[in-house]
Amino acid sequence: MTERKKIIIDTDPGIDDAMAIFIALQSPEVEVIGLTTIYGNVYTALATRNALHLLEIAGRTDIPVAEGSHVTITKGTKLRIADFVHGTDGLGNQNFPPPKGKPIEQSAADFLVEQASLYPGEVTVVALGPLTNIALAIQSDPAFIKNVGQIVLLGGAFSVNGNVNPAAEANIFGDPDAADVVFTSGADILAIGINVTHQVVLTDANRDTLAESSGKFAQYMCRILDVYFSYHHDAYSTKGVYLHDPTTLLAAVNPSLITYVEGVVRVQTVGITRGLTLFYNKQKRFGEVTEWSDKPSVKVAVTVDAPSVVKMVMERLTSS
Amino acid sequence: MTERKKIIIDTDPGIDDAMAIFIALQSPEVEVIGLTTIYGNVYTALATRNALHLLEIAGRTDIPVAEGSHVTITKGTKLRIADFVHGTDGLGNQNFPPPKGKPIEQSAADFLVEQASLYPGEVTVVALGPLTNIALAIQSDPAFIKNVGQIVLLGGAFSVNGNVNPAAEANIFGDPDAADVVFTSGADILAIGINVTHQVVLTDANRDTLAESSGKFAQYMCRILDVYFSYHHDAYSTKGVYLHDPTTLLAAVNPSLITYVEGVVRVQTVGITRGLTLFYNKQKRFGEVTEWSDKPSVKVAVTVDAPSVVKMVMERLTSS
Repeated sequence: MTERKKIIIDTDPGIDDAMAIFIALQSPEVEVIGLTTIYGNVYTALATRNALHLLEIAGRTDIPVAEGSHVTITKGTKLRIADFVHGTDGLGNQNFPPPKGKPIEQSAADFLVEQASLYPGEVTVVALGPLTNIALAIQSDPAFIKNVGQIVLLGGAFSVNGNVNPAAEANIFGDPDAADVVFTSGADILAIGINVTHQVVLTDANRDTLAESSGKFAQYMCRILDVYFSYHHDAYSTKGVYLHDPTTLLAAVNPSLITYVEGVVRVQTVGITRGLTLFYNKQKRFGEVTEWSDKPSVKVAVTVDAPSVVKMVMERLTSS
Repeated sequence: MTERKKIIIDTDPGIDDAMAIFIALQSPEVEVIGLTTIYGNVYTALATRNALHLLEIAGRTDIPVAEGSHVTITKGTKLRIADFVHGTDGLGNQNFPPPKGKPIEQSAADFLVEQASLYPGEVTVVALGPLTNIALAIQSDPAFIKNVGQIVLLGGAFSVNGNVNPAAEANIFGDPDAADVVFTSGADILAIGINVTHQVVLTDANRDTLAESSGKFAQYMCRILDVYFSYHHDAYSTKGVYLHDPTTLLAAVNPSLITYVEGVVRVQTVGITRGLTLFYNKQKRFGEVTEWSDKPSVKVAVTVDAPSVVKMVMERLTSS
């Protein structure tokens, strides 16, 4: 048996974050060595509480939780919290009791830097929220971008409309300056945008199957999914929900589920398209220097094997 | 015979502008009632000179030329002149003698307003350069957007990289503020972006056919096309040139050559993606008010019958 891939999940749970975390814990291919928390679906303090709660549900309190930044890297930006998508508690308005555990003393950024340094080239960071913690890790340790194995992030709307507004996807909109730091850092980055995750839908029928399962993760998810289904019905007229975070997690677990292109991504940080991700495919040679010139390339997902992703989601949620 | 569609071509000639003007004059479906000039491929003064020159080549000095703005609507912006695409004279570095004619006294914006008012709903404006004159017409006469029939414009890079930089197409980049005024004006607008015009290529073989023709327009075009072919070869590695302006003109002549979608377009006016056109397809209902909310829809071309466009270009250039 080959060694399991070490992953750290940077997360703002969040209903689909909860699903992604459970799937990670059910994936023999990977070893979750920590969760780091961030604002986004909820404020950071609640993200930390929910991360601890989810690990207790899973019986995996051995996994450390490091609390992340409460503010954007350019301090003073008003946070946009998506409680209307995930419920005011981030977990479908279920009022779960507070967790018994506590986060570790280390900050998320310090934990990321330390773990990447401990296992050079071996740690995959799966970033499911705004990229503040990752940007802080990059800024605090110049070696981080070399030490970290890969950063697989849910973020961006490549050649499609965003989900915060027509220009911007929520995680990038959450901290555009941090996202631009990450995309131009030179780290090995795979971005999964909503152009890909909108292809992966958990249907009403899938939810019925989860409801019939006796698996604890399936049962838990059914309990919290209502709010998420309602939001999707209202916003998109879909009968089902987009599997943003589980798709991103599974792309880290099994890279063959997606295909990608390589090019330079910059993030617009001001104006009406603030939070827009602009991918340069390098097909044209510009005579003039542009803001994309001489920046490192990243990988941007373009296709996904959606049926296989949904199948893996269902199998891993129902198998315990 | 049905009445011919009245068109005014707003133009910055420009090699492909010259081709579009000739094709318009060879198109029995339309009546060119004037040319208005703008900076872009050349400065406005040279655009006016070239417009007069091209009408003299065509023997159509009966058509008035109205000189347009020399500056962007937000004055003080440095102009970007694409002399490296079209030659320093805008017409392939051929040093043609100065024209005998003169522009009319009226400004381009005043001419547009007057003609739209004279023939309400009947005038199609084909805008082949930055949108300054059109924005000035809109701002000077509230009735213009109702009086003008349709504005068919070459502009934008919808879901593809731009040609000035990865974010922006040249005509929109030339005056982003003017473009945002036009797109949000409520006029009947059809935008032909480079996502469409990059599908329409005049090949080396087509140029050979033009060279063999005894038609005066074919002969003239062959004389000025070298610079344009060289630029395309260097920038895109294509063996051929994109027919931006002729495609836009022919879309006005024969709308069935393209298909389009409808939605709201806003233009980013600041930052690294200045000049970006962002199309909102209205598929998602945003809970929050966005910069695209409550703005009028425009038409954005998505497909083009490229073989038919090239065929029409060749026929009309070689038939006299």
